[in-house]
Amino acid sequence: MSEIRAKFVEVYSFLKSEILNDPAFEYTDDSRQWVERMLDYNVPGGKLNRGLSVIDSYKLLKEGQELSEEEIFLASALGWCIEWLQAYFLVLDDIMDNSVTRRGQPCWFRVPKVGLIAVNDGIILRNHISRILKNHFKGKTYYVDLLDLFNEVEFQTASGQMIDLITTLEGEKDLLKYSLPLHHRIVQYKTAYYSFYLPVACALLMAGENLDKHLDVKNILIEMGTYFQVQDDYLDCFGHPDVIGKVGTDIEDFKCSWLVVKALERSTEEQKKLLNENYGKPDEASVKKVKELYKVLDLEGVFAEYENNSYQKLIKSIEAHPSKAVQAVLKSFLAKIYKRQK
Amino acid sequence: MSEIRAKFVEVYSFLKSEILNDPAFEYTDDSRQWVERMLDYNVPGGKLNRGLSVIDSYKLLKEGQELSEEEIFLASALGWCIEWLQAYFLVLDDIMDNSVTRRGQPCWFRVPKVGLIAVNDGIILRNHISRILKNHFKGKTYYVDLLDLFNEVEFQTASGQMIDLITTLEGEKDLLKYSLPLHHRIVQYKTAYYSFYLPVACALLMAGENLDKHLDVKNILIEMGTYFQVQDDYLDCFGHPDVIGKVGTDIEDFKCSWLVVKALERSTEEQKKLLNENYGKPDEASVKKVKELYKVLDLEGVFAEYENNSYQKLIKSIEAHPSKAVQAVLKSFLAKIYKRQK
Repeated sequence: MSEIRAKFVEVYSFLKSEILNDPAFEYTDDSRQWVERMLDYNVPGGKLNRGLSVIDSYKLLKEGQELSEEEIFLASALGWCIEWLQAYFLVLDDIMDNSVTRRGQPCWFRVPKVGLIAVNDGIILRNHISRILKNHFKGKTYYVDLLDLFNEVEFQTASGQMIDLITTLEGEKDLLKYSLPLHHRIVQYKTAYYSFYLPVACALLMAGENLDKHLDVKNILIEMGTYFQVQDDYLDCFGHPDVIGKVGTDIEDFKCSWLVVKALERSTEEQKKLLNENYGKPDEASVKKVKELYKVLDLEGVFAEYENNSYQKLIKSIEAHPSKAVQAVLKSFLAKIYKRQK
Repeated sequence: MSEIRAKFVEVYSFLKSEILNDPAFEYTDDSRQWVERMLDYNVPGGKLNRGLSVIDSYKLLKEGQELSEEEIFLASALGWCIEWLQAYFLVLDDIMDNSVTRRGQPCWFRVPKVGLIAVNDGIILRNHISRILKNHFKGKTYYVDLLDLFNEVEFQTASGQMIDLITTLEGEKDLLKYSLPLHHRIVQYKTAYYSFYLPVACALLMAGENLDKHLDVKNILIEMGTYFQVQDDYLDCFGHPDVIGKVGTDIEDFKCSWLVVKALERSTEEQKKLLNENYGKPDEASVKKVKELYKVLDLEGVFAEYENNSYQKLIKSIEAHPSKAVQAVLKSFLAKIYKRQK
């Protein structure tokens, strides 16, 4: 484990113990134990990419200057706020999707005695972010900007989740409602803002930057997040389950995936009919027919071309940015995801 | 309808249309319609007491000065933020409690096609509060205090809800876990902060006050909110369904109600056994036995005495406050709830 990662993980225990002793609430013993277990179950078990990238980005913005212990701590605390946000979304998404497992264990709401108390636990996770920000950033000049940032990104994520949920209802009536602009809108709001823009925006605020002056950075990160989600859609069908760590079910679940949108775009009337009849059906035979059509339409080749174009376009936008430090931040994000297999 | 109420109701339509045209999110037609329907279904249908009390309180703090149109608008916007907060809690609570009706109509998650999308709608309701605050208070000196206030009160409410949910799990194993201090803690956090303290705190901030200097006001309002919830517990069993607008089910639902706590306090060993055997059971016969015990233990008399003592104590605390304007705010709250039948 890298030194940064080790420090980052230490900060989790510190933040947790602050939360469990928050003077704004008088815990009972039972409720303190409940929150501790809920946090340990849901917050630290992911890949921590989003959280760690706040520290990485902040370091690059400081152009190699040695970070003080306080700076590392604060960047880590913001990183954990994003991990807490992620946990909050996942706990609630799993309830809405009726999912079974998450990060190799049963979803939180499936743990005995938890059930729908998980809805309230989700809210509590979200509220912990405000507590962490208040405890550690209240005196900073950028405190109010941090609050606005987390609020706006949360609003955008929940709104993206809403169009995703509603679109699936509509798509069930008419698959032709699925289109590239709609797919783009869903993934932009549902994934890109919180996974790509938020970590960098946190680092920029810590570095004393005004976010209104970095709309170009935002746009590049949103495009990168969109590319990331297209990869996700692609791997759901074409990735190796052993490598991606799950068996994809986008076809069965009637998802507005990049693949089905591209397939519709390239299909003859007859192929559209096949999609209409087989997409979103739970049986293996239907799924197989859809996958065969994807092969016939050469979606693998279409994706390879998309990946190539996206990369070239992103590199060009990044290199047009006036600051070398910002370029380094953006290139580091891109390098982490380009041609990823998982 | 009073003039203030009419103006307050107008502000709802204005805030809603701002939300439906929020530049931070590109709605699809379907999602804009969804949000409008969801808001109309869940936000404006209550008694609006919490929201209206922000305007009432602000007026009293201004000691009879005529309020400007802008002041009325801003106080109304804060009032609506509290109504939005209430809608958010109710939408999610109804899912967790598996409730059937709310405000005389099916709970939102029971509306066809809604289902667990209601979880995300709850989150969206919470996010609208941040949008309203940003749209109308961003330039004010007290903007950051408003954000902190709403965040802290939401955290306290969700934490109170958590001990309520966990306590019910524990109580099912051993009724004797229910005690007066535990009941006090639940209702203080779950109800009093957002229903009593929050409206007055909003009015104080608008009037340019520093909340840290009004801890006495906070304590009085928390006590008043506790008294309000004890009335609620009492009316759930002894109120007239036609008057309170619902049939109480606290006994069936194993609630940590003031009545069961008082009953345990006053019971002989044999009566405790009866409670243990019949509390939290869904059948009519068990409920009847519990209610008979409540009569035998004269909980009606105990409540009358509690109500009397609470009132005297609250009046005394209020009259000890140095500001006549603040006294007027607090007395106006107390007058609205003293000896209420619904």
